[in-house]
Amino acid sequence: MVRSGGRSLMDRLYLYDTTLRDGQQTQGVQFSTAEKIRIAGMLDLLGVDYIEGGWPGANPTDSAFFEAAPETRAQMTAFGMTKRAGVSAENDDVLAAVVNAGTGAVCLVGKTHDFHVTTALGISLEENVENIARSVGYLVSLGREALFDAEHFFDGWKANRDYALECIRAALAAGARWIVLCDTNGGTLPVETGEIVREVIAAGIPGDRLGIHTHNDTANAVACSLAAVDAGVRQIQGTLNGLGERCGNANLITLIPTLLLKEPYASRYETGVPRSALAELVGVSRKLDDILNRVPVKQAPYVGASAFAHKAGLHASAILKDPSTYEHVDPAIVGNERVIPMSNQAGQSNLRRRLADAGLAVPKGDPALAGILSEVKRREDAGYTYDSAQASFELLARKALGQLPAFFEVERYRVTIERRKNAKGQVISVSEAVVVVHVDGEKILSVSESSDGDGNDQGPVNALSKALGKDLGKYQCIIDDMRLVDFKVRITHGGTEAVTRVIIDSEDGEGRRWSTVGVSANIVDASFEALVDAVTWKLLHARSVQGAVQG
Amino acid sequence: MVRSGGRSLMDRLYLYDTTLRDGQQTQGVQFSTAEKIRIAGMLDLLGVDYIEGGWPGANPTDSAFFEAAPETRAQMTAFGMTKRAGVSAENDDVLAAVVNAGTGAVCLVGKTHDFHVTTALGISLEENVENIARSVGYLVSLGREALFDAEHFFDGWKANRDYALECIRAALAAGARWIVLCDTNGGTLPVETGEIVREVIAAGIPGDRLGIHTHNDTANAVACSLAAVDAGVRQIQGTLNGLGERCGNANLITLIPTLLLKEPYASRYETGVPRSALAELVGVSRKLDDILNRVPVKQAPYVGASAFAHKAGLHASAILKDPSTYEHVDPAIVGNERVIPMSNQAGQSNLRRRLADAGLAVPKGDPALAGILSEVKRREDAGYTYDSAQASFELLARKALGQLPAFFEVERYRVTIERRKNAKGQVISVSEAVVVVHVDGEKILSVSESSDGDGNDQGPVNALSKALGKDLGKYQCIIDDMRLVDFKVRITHGGTEAVTRVIIDSEDGEGRRWSTVGVSANIVDASFEALVDAVTWKLLHARSVQGAVQG
Repeated sequence: MVRSGGRSLMDRLYLYDTTLRDGQQTQGVQFSTAEKIRIAGMLDLLGVDYIEGGWPGANPTDSAFFEAAPETRAQMTAFGMTKRAGVSAENDDVLAAVVNAGTGAVCLVGKTHDFHVTTALGISLEENVENIARSVGYLVSLGREALFDAEHFFDGWKANRDYALECIRAALAAGARWIVLCDTNGGTLPVETGEIVREVIAAGIPGDRLGIHTHNDTANAVACSLAAVDAGVRQIQGTLNGLGERCGNANLITLIPTLLLKEPYASRYETGVPRSALAELVGVSRKLDDILNRVPVKQAPYVGASAFAHKAGLHASAILKDPSTYEHVDPAIVGNERVIPMSNQAGQSNLRRRLADAGLAVPKGDPALAGILSEVKRREDAGYTYDSAQASFELLARKALGQLPAFFEVERYRVTIERRKNAKGQVISVSEAVVVVHVDGEKILSVSESSDGDGNDQGPVNALSKALGKDLGKYQCIIDDMRLVDFKVRITHGGTEAVTRVIIDSEDGEGRRWSTVGVSANIVDASFEALVDAVTWKLLHARSVQGAVQG
Repeated sequence: MVRSGGRSLMDRLYLYDTTLRDGQQTQGVQFSTAEKIRIAGMLDLLGVDYIEGGWPGANPTDSAFFEAAPETRAQMTAFGMTKRAGVSAENDDVLAAVVNAGTGAVCLVGKTHDFHVTTALGISLEENVENIARSVGYLVSLGREALFDAEHFFDGWKANRDYALECIRAALAAGARWIVLCDTNGGTLPVETGEIVREVIAAGIPGDRLGIHTHNDTANAVACSLAAVDAGVRQIQGTLNGLGERCGNANLITLIPTLLLKEPYASRYETGVPRSALAELVGVSRKLDDILNRVPVKQAPYVGASAFAHKAGLHASAILKDPSTYEHVDPAIVGNERVIPMSNQAGQSNLRRRLADAGLAVPKGDPALAGILSEVKRREDAGYTYDSAQASFELLARKALGQLPAFFEVERYRVTIERRKNAKGQVISVSEAVVVVHVDGEKILSVSESSDGDGNDQGPVNALSKALGKDLGKYQCIIDDMRLVDFKVRITHGGTEAVTRVIIDSEDGEGRRWSTVGVSANIVDASFEALVDAVTWKLLHARSVQGAVQG
């Protein structure tokens, strides 16, 4: 209990992050030492209490990480397993490697489910209890904070509760600070999780010595963690973005704002995460995706790009009156943003709001609104989508409102893609693009080849993008800091009548990012349309050009 | 209660799917009528009780869908909103459009939160109750099954429970079959959801007239649905793959196996989904992603490619002794597969089964198996996927086994895409492809332009496909009946290091359909690779060619 002056009593809830250990069990994830150090820094920024860095000795990167482990406010923790039968804790080389990492805390996993002791380990039930007690006792004798991960605890409890209890009692008696109840296979549902935790506490294991470790195999990892806290545990284990074996672990990026913002947790518990750190959540989540080279999940609770996107027309119009009508929390608190996408469900009020966001004030009832809406609908029927191509939407609206200067005109382009043998007899592919534009009556021809730093062909869109960006006459200085950062292709309709939709994300030197769309049966032509929109948007938003146009 | 002979009493739980309505509120999702019809068929295959098809009148595609609505076992349901104040239900044109869709059931959303009535609607509390009662009564008078979606019910209950109760009592009294309690903003946690449902039932609304509609804004949509069922509701609303506004709705793909396989649900409730339909779950989930051109979520509960992947060394070795050691359900029940790192025994037996599927019997322990496994892994790391490109997998395996004849060799190709003005001054695009192949030492040059029946350019892949199919010498008669029926593009990795994966589906005159894959930074080159595989597979499976090769 934390007693702070005359304020209400709040229980301390500890957050234990295992992104660097269980998170690394995600299929396709393998962190480098440098990445682990970066992630540890992100976790410390949030304010978790424990950072489980990996299993020293089991994995070369993990060993290297502990050698180079950064200074953190959080307790750095090494993971390992209880000693094997037949050797002493002091002489177990697997345990020695864990201890030698020199962390203040050590978490050891051990069996508590009788079936696993006999089937997977092949030792007697008594030997297993002894392994737990001796291993934990050894850590305590070394002055380390000891945690015991009770593997398969919930299944074990259902199969043989006396034995499961005997295992964790042994760990507690040996001095473990925390007994972490693990639902290793992820099959336990929230209600049952809460019931079993209550029974464990009723059997004499204090709740403030208990942690919970869940997996998302039934999409209940977060709910099971909350149910365990309701029942009395005071430590939650989880990972950033819910990384982890199979379907992942409990997602701390989701749990943290729920614990800090929602009742009964907000007034009942105190964590190491200050409320101000919530604004870092979106940034931390995206940085992890960046490290993993993953596309961020749009629908992710709190931090996803769609988490506060209001597509339904009815919702969008109410949001304009009062955001709390369709938002469970204010997006700004978690570092996120409200999005009112354009779609064919949108009404005029939504449209006006979107136009206002783009700096276009159009009065209510202006006949141009109906024109823009019907143009959006017509184009969406043809395959365009404006909810993820805001810049193209703005250009469409400005054109309808007569507010789009004709910066340049494309007369023609030509792209050639060849696959052939080079002089050395190697098969190579080469993409070349020629673009002919008119700027202020001047005709400019540009040609460009596509290749990355190593001379490998990057394809026709890359070649076109380079040629278009090579010479735009007086505008060239404005577009020089633009770069194409993402490129998405979708075949709408499909089959032989396939229509291709291309969405291009661009970025500039000021860190602005904008998205444009093109649609055509010809994928290269669709890409070119999106590229031209991208350049046009950039010109439109360059102060100097606007001055020139107005002047 | 369903009483089946001497068997235990089971409550009937109804599943209501809103993929086609709330699912379409997902950012970036806009179904065509044909796609809606396909999805309705998938839902019927699973056995949901209700299919909410959309909001007729609000959206042209929704109206078109109801006009062409397929025959389903499930009750087809139109969605709309309660009548507006100041007009009668009979004269409300929005309601008329919903009713005119002619569905057996109609679900109307209405306000139950006083704040929304006054803030968003701007009408009196009494008018709103009247709108609910009159609208539901009107549906009942027309002989329709009426459902009332109580929007913001949980927030409304907390703000003014008497009013929230008055609203749903009015719907019930007017004859609504179901009152669906909606947590519209997604902020209510599972425990509170259960508590409020219990209070509603205690206040006199029977649980077998109540439904639950949750959103995933705190990652608890599934848990809240289960909590509501525990508390007594008998209808669950959700969507396939958890599509839906913001963070999505409750995911039926997750809920269905949980309800059918896990206690207390498995023995307490009966749904319209037969146990045998669980094996369709993976297929249904992937087909929806396919329609949306989304990359399937690997970590998705039950159906994700990683849901039964055992990466941790300790887990993998225990799994070999007994799969139940680290699996909460048998993956085969839900149509999924266990995945264990390619290098070990289980990977090889899996591979042998796949080879056998392709007609290639390779004996256990054959050293070629390890070679194929590492080649598959290397290519999958580079972006290839063989799950949806079985024909390319077969070619890869045959090549490794020395069972792939060299039918023809591509010396080079060149594609040109031009956008320019034609003689009449119209802007047109033209794609032209030249392919140079060698067949039996003979060099053959083919050139083709891309255009559909109306002379419109269909793009570079179409041109390449035509040129490649134009002259393959002695093989030409075999490939003449081939046609490209689908073309899917996915950017893997994303950003500036984007790699393009192209999957091409081909069909021939015998009705055979096969899929091939190509990967490259250059989208045209990736397409060409898939095209060459498609032609090669066709030649391999043509009886006459095999004879020629063997002869």
